[in-house]
Amino acid sequence: SRSLNLAVIPGDGIGQEVVAQGLKVLSAVLPQDVKLETKEYDLGASRWHRTGETLPDAELEALKGHDAILLGAIGDPTVPSGVLERGLLLKLRFAFDHYVNLRPSKLFPSTATPLAGRPDIDFVVVREGTEGPYTGNGGSLRTGTPAEVATEVSLNTAYGVERVVRDAYERANSRPRKKLTLVHKNNVLVYAGHMWKNIFDRVGQEYPDVATDYLHVDAATIFFVTQPDRFDVIVTDNLFGDILTDLAAAVTGGIGLAASANINPDRTFPSMFEPVHGSAPDIAGQGKADPTATILSVALLLRHLGFDAEAVRVEEAVAADLAGRDGTAATARTTDQIGDALAVRVAS
Amino acid sequence: SRSLNLAVIPGDGIGQEVVAQGLKVLSAVLPQDVKLETKEYDLGASRWHRTGETLPDAELEALKGHDAILLGAIGDPTVPSGVLERGLLLKLRFAFDHYVNLRPSKLFPSTATPLAGRPDIDFVVVREGTEGPYTGNGGSLRTGTPAEVATEVSLNTAYGVERVVRDAYERANSRPRKKLTLVHKNNVLVYAGHMWKNIFDRVGQEYPDVATDYLHVDAATIFFVTQPDRFDVIVTDNLFGDILTDLAAAVTGGIGLAASANINPDRTFPSMFEPVHGSAPDIAGQGKADPTATILSVALLLRHLGFDAEAVRVEEAVAADLAGRDGTAATARTTDQIGDALAVRVAS
Ligand SMILES: CC(C)[C@H](C(=O)O)[C@@H](O)C(=O)O
Ligand SMILES: CC(C)[C@H](C(=O)O)[C@@H](O)C(=O)O
Repeated sequence: SRSLNLAVIPGDGIGQEVVAQGLKVLSAVLPQDVKLETKEYDLGASRWHRTGETLPDAELEALKGHDAILLGAIGDPTVPSGVLERGLLLKLRFAFDHYVNLRPSKLFPSTATPLAGRPDIDFVVVREGTEGPYTGNGGSLRTGTPAEVATEVSLNTAYGVERVVRDAYERANSRPRKKLTLVHKNNVLVYAGHMWKNIFDRVGQEYPDVATDYLHVDAATIFFVTQPDRFDVIVTDNLFGDILTDLAAAVTGGIGLAASANINPDRTFPSMFEPVHGSAPDIAGQGKADPTATILSVALLLRHLGFDAEAVRVEEAVAADLAGRDGTAATARTTDQIGDALAVRVAS
Repeated sequence: SRSLNLAVIPGDGIGQEVVAQGLKVLSAVLPQDVKLETKEYDLGASRWHRTGETLPDAELEALKGHDAILLGAIGDPTVPSGVLERGLLLKLRFAFDHYVNLRPSKLFPSTATPLAGRPDIDFVVVREGTEGPYTGNGGSLRTGTPAEVATEVSLNTAYGVERVVRDAYERANSRPRKKLTLVHKNNVLVYAGHMWKNIFDRVGQEYPDVATDYLHVDAATIFFVTQPDRFDVIVTDNLFGDILTDLAAAVTGGIGLAASANINPDRTFPSMFEPVHGSAPDIAGQGKADPTATILSVALLLRHLGFDAEAVRVEEAVAADLAGRDGTAATARTTDQIGDALAVRVAS
């Protein structure tokens, strides 16, 4: 019999609530012969308040033994901004070499969008996950004085850029429209921008069937709201990807539906699956959070582990559930009720 | 008799066409006793092709003698990306210490927006203009090889942040809603982000009537499309401001209407006024460009030079002209005809 040995990091705020629904749906959809084992890791704000730890070495080591990680949300107003994000979430993404941060964006037929005209949106952002302005490289001199200087260094390597660009070409090549757009800002960030563009062009020669395009990040945000149907696959750096995928979530019905996968395609370490949304402390513990983003992240997890049919069932269940909603983002159901409904759908 | 000694840099693509309309309206609106003198500077792609120069020292020096600069657009596909942007446009912003890059965003009643529900949008972005990831600090090692490493350094100083934050508080304090939002990414870019936030909080103590708010840049893009009416004044860094103001332009009817002012509030050097849009080489020379963004930039120029009544007349003329359009972004009129119509309006 097969097994799935999953690490679960509920994290902060609504993390616990949405992760519980993700696990509910995962259990319901897995084939009978797959033994699901989960181990919960107590990491996040309350752990930090209790012990001062964000991600101790022993736990980082233990996490390596799992097939995958399901994460809820990280970040809390009672903890200085950055402590948990850098010390836990980004630490995991970097330590486990999650260089493909995959974020699909699809506007489901009955889902409300802030965009007039309801454009046909169905693209996926391949966000680089281990370099760029996210490396933590930088510092502050004379902190807190009028003479303070603070730097943030964006680090980019041909090694790191080529592997994510190649992954994006592979994805574009396997999709019907076969279109790949690079987003950067190479008219200002000329060092990193030109390296990205050169590598993008060079690797593209190996994919003659993929149509390519380049957009500056500022222009890309315009097209996200005026012409989002022009996009198929987008590849971009860590920070631009962060910004663009929140915007993408907004135009496809909100952050309550946006899934993400932090993938290590080489499978040297476990990949990690999490909703794009944050910990939303303002609604935590009230049963108001939409667990759909986490459940769609579970679909990405299933696909990564080879359970393709099960992944499709989860996605179809979500599509059916969304079709039954009343077209507004708000829903009368609780977090738990949405999870229950989806668990029933995938099991039937 | 008074005089206005203006430097004009038409630049590339549609720059020449839109700047001509800006000057037409400026001439029409200025009081009779003001002598308008203009000197055109031949800078941009064609100059670079001819001489290899972007902005020679002699011209930089000569530009200092003007009361203000009106700029069309910089950038051309025949020139390597970044050469003109860094060597001309950003060189001017940095050399003339344009630390307040002011970008108002207003959705006029009859203007089309991609947003359903037509939210009430009327905010202004105060984008820092002389620091951040735009300093050109960075480099590339082993360029073009598989071992390449490229860096981009965001440089931020308390001196530079405090002055722009203070300017933003002043603006917020003088507006009816008195609300100021800081946008950064201080949960990841902790060095620069915390410095921005600390200075923002400290300076805020001097403005007890201004309500403040902080948003991560990714979350800010969500609110730009779901709840843009929540914003009054936004202050942010150079790169985030670049991204957010293109998005703001998109939701308020497009880049054809978005004006900007690169202001040196200390008046040690001339300020520079330019549309947010680029050189749009695809439509250059066809009379298709909307000169409204440039004409609204002329209004900002007038206000900066103390011609407040004239600035209002330009803005009212634009509002009236937009009210007469048919509600779609496309217009049957040429660039020249729109300029003529606005010149007639401001003169009457
Ligand atoms: C919480 C934060 C560090 C994170 C990021 O910036 O990557 C989040 O915004 C995301 O997009 O996953
Ligand atoms: C052309 C480019 C260098 C410029 C910028 O990035 O500032 C433009 O996008 C703008 O917003 O004025």
